[in-house]
Amino acid sequence: MIGTDGLRIDGDRLWCRLTEMAQIGATANGGVCRVALTDEDKRGRDLFVAWCRDAGCTISVDPIGNIFARRPGVDNTLPPVLAGSHLDSQPTGGRFDGVYGVLAGLEVVETLNDHGVTTNAPLEIVAWTNEEGARFAPALTGSGVFTGVFNLKSTLQIKDKAGCSIGDELQRIGYAGEASVGGRPIKAAFEAHIEQGPILEAEGKTIGVVTGVQGMNWYELIIDGQEAHAGPTPMEMRRDPVLGATRILSRLYQLAEEHGPWGRVTFGDFKAEPGSTNTVPGHLTITVDLRHPDQAILDTMDRSFRTIVAEECERANLQGRVVEVWNSPAVVYATECVGAVRDAVAVTGFSAMDIVSGAGHDSVYISRVAPTGMIFVPCENGLSHNEAENADKQDLAAGCDVLLQAMLKLAN
Amino acid sequence: MIGTDGLRIDGDRLWCRLTEMAQIGATANGGVCRVALTDEDKRGRDLFVAWCRDAGCTISVDPIGNIFARRPGVDNTLPPVLAGSHLDSQPTGGRFDGVYGVLAGLEVVETLNDHGVTTNAPLEIVAWTNEEGARFAPALTGSGVFTGVFNLKSTLQIKDKAGCSIGDELQRIGYAGEASVGGRPIKAAFEAHIEQGPILEAEGKTIGVVTGVQGMNWYELIIDGQEAHAGPTPMEMRRDPVLGATRILSRLYQLAEEHGPWGRVTFGDFKAEPGSTNTVPGHLTITVDLRHPDQAILDTMDRSFRTIVAEECERANLQGRVVEVWNSPAVVYATECVGAVRDAVAVTGFSAMDIVSGAGHDSVYISRVAPTGMIFVPCENGLSHNEAENADKQDLAAGCDVLLQAMLKLAN
Repeated sequence: MIGTDGLRIDGDRLWCRLTEMAQIGATANGGVCRVALTDEDKRGRDLFVAWCRDAGCTISVDPIGNIFARRPGVDNTLPPVLAGSHLDSQPTGGRFDGVYGVLAGLEVVETLNDHGVTTNAPLEIVAWTNEEGARFAPALTGSGVFTGVFNLKSTLQIKDKAGCSIGDELQRIGYAGEASVGGRPIKAAFEAHIEQGPILEAEGKTIGVVTGVQGMNWYELIIDGQEAHAGPTPMEMRRDPVLGATRILSRLYQLAEEHGPWGRVTFGDFKAEPGSTNTVPGHLTITVDLRHPDQAILDTMDRSFRTIVAEECERANLQGRVVEVWNSPAVVYATECVGAVRDAVAVTGFSAMDIVSGAGHDSVYISRVAPTGMIFVPCENGLSHNEAENADKQDLAAGCDVLLQAMLKLAN
Repeated sequence: MIGTDGLRIDGDRLWCRLTEMAQIGATANGGVCRVALTDEDKRGRDLFVAWCRDAGCTISVDPIGNIFARRPGVDNTLPPVLAGSHLDSQPTGGRFDGVYGVLAGLEVVETLNDHGVTTNAPLEIVAWTNEEGARFAPALTGSGVFTGVFNLKSTLQIKDKAGCSIGDELQRIGYAGEASVGGRPIKAAFEAHIEQGPILEAEGKTIGVVTGVQGMNWYELIIDGQEAHAGPTPMEMRRDPVLGATRILSRLYQLAEEHGPWGRVTFGDFKAEPGSTNTVPGHLTITVDLRHPDQAILDTMDRSFRTIVAEECERANLQGRVVEVWNSPAVVYATECVGAVRDAVAVTGFSAMDIVSGAGHDSVYISRVAPTGMIFVPCENGLSHNEAENADKQDLAAGCDVLLQAMLKLAN
């Protein structure tokens, strides 16, 4: 295996495939609605599988619906080098989130085919099931089951709001496979992805060498007060959860600032009960998302959050509860994979910077069972989970070239 | 007409009738579901009409279903003195809201009958249609049409969620009458009501002499920012509507305090879009209810509110909009009626205080066409619009005694 440093992927082919895939579940606003285990997801999977078969890959599907497209190597007793991401989208998602990483893997295989290059170890392109978690919570279902984070049987029983289970929907769309679920050695795993943030664009860099992933904690903050009529109840006699929430949120924004620039806090959803204009709510529920790439600092933020809730609820005569919904500890990616990406940047010559992922990815779970690395490319205005999500064709090709070189390095 | 100062109503009879009426639409939790123009409303109306006929009153019903039970006076060319409220309830309403004012009027008539007292001017007990607005919006339908605030024809066409119109439902339950709708002179109008707030109870007073009604403005505060992924988007690059809202709400609580104790602000409902834990909302909508009994101060609060929204949205790079949803100007009740209630308190000797109504009532509209006054009695824990709504039998009797004396004063 020599002389592959100069290999370059076909950016037009990659772009055309991204465009074709984006037609499945295309929205009027230029985005994609290809939510996990819907008819659109099935069509997306079918198209991917057809492309992989055309590229000479062998397809296997495991019981949680993860799709593996294997390209043999010289020595097929060696553990494979993986590249992949997910094909499902948010309900008003974009054309690149996830699907780019899957089709970049396919493009690596196609490029190797074009040039008659066989790697020493086999390669596998993977599409993980339900990364987004938009329909079935929690997110990262396929990679979570694959790596033993989630139990297969109970995960198959998870239902959407309409009462349909993951297991039944996998059967319905024909992706309840029989391949073994994880438990096999993997040489290395890579995931190319749009940054989903504004940093690369702001810094004018083409490639983000992802060194790790922020730790993230999801909570529900539930504040109970006393439902009361908006008119006759004097302000000082109220037990108004909104007053408590206003003070708590204000202090949590300060908390993120104190732990800046990496400390992050997001309040994504609100529910007031009974939710009537002229009634002081009796109950207010707010989702809280806390993040920091340093797990020790995230733990500090968690403790401060709880203290703030306790103090402000006591001050306003409210009952506050912090319910842990989900968390994902901070991840530091494997030196060998980060190094392979860095070397690939050097070989290809693209401008690059180290970056920490602020979003969760399948790679977070994969990193528990295999050396893992990620490659980021810029996305326009940092937008993602948005129909307006956009990325530059050249940047996407550059990320794929880096993926190719990184995979070659670890597969040879 | 002399020697009526010592007249006292029959608190047992009043209590028994309240109890009997509460059986119509009684809920398992001790409340009442007697929503406007339902079968339960019809049964409540029928029972009221039967009682009034037994008490010698003449019944007339107008086309919007308002029921007038007239007791002749010495000089029936004089305009009548009215007492009334409403018989309809919230879906999970209480046993006293509205119905107390109607049956207190009936008890006044019964007491006068018992003692052979005829007032100079005629008396009328009124049950206004659809005060609550729970099934048909807006509220205060009957009194609004009676006073020309609403157009009769278009009001009859208002439909509930099931598509049934007020007009059809009035026909169905037999209360589409033919009496003229308003336009006739009224000497004075009184409404006895539970306070629906905690002040009388907290102050240990039996009677609230209602001097007016808070002005109230309903708004939707809509803040548009930029939807963004919670992880990768640095805090300082966000356009987060929740950050703006936190600052705006904090300042609006201060605004209410600056205009305390009567300035009130309530945030009853919240909607974040897209409403996902790991997405900075692109849009946040909050209902805002601003109140003050002095219209000039309420207008000042309105202007301050708009300034605060503009300043904080500019500061956080957001777009803020204040949408006016509804308003009801501050009402100052007629000096002669407030004075009559105050005199009645002096005659009866109950403890009392002046109070401003924080809730809307039929009297708000009636005050546009006739001198109007209200009498409040305490309700347990200030609770109303709630199945747990409760009031003390003695307090209810006291309020009715005050009503009796106030009506005597203006009808003689």
